Amino acid sequence: MLISDLPTPALVVDGPSLDANLATMAAALPGPRLRPHVKAHKCTALAQRQADAGHHNFTCATPREVIGMTAAGLGDDLLLANETIDGSRLRAMAECGGRVTVAVDSDETIAAAAANGIREVLIDVNVGLPRCGCEPDDAGRLADLARGRGLDVRGVMGYEGHIYAFSEREERTNATEQAMQLLLAAHEKVGGPIVSAGATGSYDLNRWATEIQAGSYALMDVAYGPIIPEFRTALYVLSTVISVSSGYAVADCGLKAFGMDHGNPTMDDAQVLLVSDEHITFRTRNSVRVGDVVRVWPAHVDPSVAYHERMQLASGAEPGAELIDTWNVDLRGW
Amino acid sequence: MLISDLPTPALVVDGPSLDANLATMAAALPGPRLRPHVKAHKCTALAQRQADAGHHNFTCATPREVIGMTAAGLGDDLLLANETIDGSRLRAMAECGGRVTVAVDSDETIAAAAANGIREVLIDVNVGLPRCGCEPDDAGRLADLARGRGLDVRGVMGYEGHIYAFSEREERTNATEQAMQLLLAAHEKVGGPIVSAGATGSYDLNRWATEIQAGSYALMDVAYGPIIPEFRTALYVLSTVISVSSGYAVADCGLKAFGMDHGNPTMDDAQVLLVSDEHITFRTRNSVRVGDVVRVWPAHVDPSVAYHERMQLASGAEPGAELIDTWNVDLRGW
Repeated sequence: MLISDLPTPALVVDGPSLDANLATMAAALPGPRLRPHVKAHKCTALAQRQADAGHHNFTCATPREVIGMTAAGLGDDLLLANETIDGSRLRAMAECGGRVTVAVDSDETIAAAAANGIREVLIDVNVGLPRCGCEPDDAGRLADLARGRGLDVRGVMGYEGHIYAFSEREERTNATEQAMQLLLAAHEKVGGPIVSAGATGSYDLNRWATEIQAGSYALMDVAYGPIIPEFRTALYVLSTVISVSSGYAVADCGLKAFGMDHGNPTMDDAQVLLVSDEHITFRTRNSVRVGDVVRVWPAHVDPSVAYHERMQLASGAEPGAELIDTWNVDLRGW
Repeated sequence: MLISDLPTPALVVDGPSLDANLATMAAALPGPRLRPHVKAHKCTALAQRQADAGHHNFTCATPREVIGMTAAGLGDDLLLANETIDGSRLRAMAECGGRVTVAVDSDETIAAAAANGIREVLIDVNVGLPRCGCEPDDAGRLADLARGRGLDVRGVMGYEGHIYAFSEREERTNATEQAMQLLLAAHEKVGGPIVSAGATGSYDLNRWATEIQAGSYALMDVAYGPIIPEFRTALYVLSTVISVSSGYAVADCGLKAFGMDHGNPTMDDAQVLLVSDEHITFRTRNSVRVGDVVRVWPAHVDPSVAYHERMQLASGAEPGAELIDTWNVDLRGW
């Protein structure tokens, strides 16, 4: 079957580009140097490819991701790099059969983890992005508190996501170093073997963390292309042209197929004019007819994938490529 | 059970506001004067409430919505207000057991409908929004073509979505009238009993259509509030505060819980600073603690609902309201 024969809209993975991305990353950060973040793809079949590339420790953003990864046989060492005080979900993770470590950054999150059977934690430290994470100066106290509650503190984590604000590599390197100095200072007080940090955008800048939580590299965001050209954009939405008017045409994908926080999706040789629930209106100099299939590239992979029940693995980037496999996006929801 | 006891993020429907919205609309556009659009909520349980309010003809945006509505016993008269040339899906709709009318706007969409067992169509006419729809002058020819292929042409449809660009009611009224003059001129050539048009934003302006395809009015978009204050915002995401820092706090919902095309979601008495995959960072003058639950209001209902497996019907707008029912968002996907 060809990709162009799929019902649309269809979320398509360019298999060779995915393979190249996995190989590039595995060469740079082999084995446990990378803790791939599954939130980017929410797909255990794709995670299995990452495991096949040598990475057996994974990062998750939700309890459902943790439990789903374990159910898929990928529960060797899972980090919930996020805080929760949901007792039911903490217990479900504690009892899921995988090795589960959760991030904690407060008295409350430590108490919830300890009370619900979680055995291992990382102290989540704020290293510059205004999100979760304790003050670096508070990390030692929290580690002591956690150990006092019987938890094994495996180390620290901190996400230097604010470095994406800098367009120059040198600025990103400096910002990463400053962030990691905060994390290493906290780690001195906390102890444990793990210093977990990073992202696709810092995978080759961050020399301080013991492991990097990169996720986007596998399918790759269009926005990151200019700063990390060694990874290829490997995900698009195949769409069918359903209407052609003077000056524009319309294809059958829209706001329910694309995360829009990074702006409109983009198209090959075409200008996107309007995106509505189930339509994308575009202008192109090429001739276009009802029934043509077009590629539409999400501006942001993670929230786009989360709209789709499945992704289609293709033998190449073109709609004429063959369908190799259908992967369920099986880690959606919470 | 109280809403505040739900696992989060949870999509919550304020039941009294929903009921008020349904009653207000049913009074303004009783029975078949309204053809509620299910794309806004993708939920057959909510559609059943619309049927209970007297509306038995529905509008759909996808074949799955058509087939799911029929399976739920709501297939009296379903309009796919969208074009498709997908033969499998057209056949599935033709054979689903409901009365199904599809929009057509070209030779190709007429041929696909006729070849795959569809019996009834509307001619979709472009009345000003650059999306689907034929030129008004071409509508008569397409109707003749469709009848020549054995299709029953029930009339015309046209979506005056461009009127939302006007902030003043008088401007929207004028733009609606201009759009409907185009549609009525097309209807003269096409014939048939139906002139289908409109949206929540024109429900009380459009005196020319025989039926109005309003969807947003049930759960109501925040953005429409200022121009249509008679409908209440009835949908929010309940979220739990998971981290509190100096100057801001973080709750457990993010880009995978909200359509972002209309911008950031909003919060009660708080400023949203950052939205990432599973987090919302906000600033508030109120005291906030880990474990507090907060309401986060989507900027755009339709693509927000499409992220969620279910919605929770509540006895009121506050998190202290009681849980009345859990509704599956069962019309997701394509």
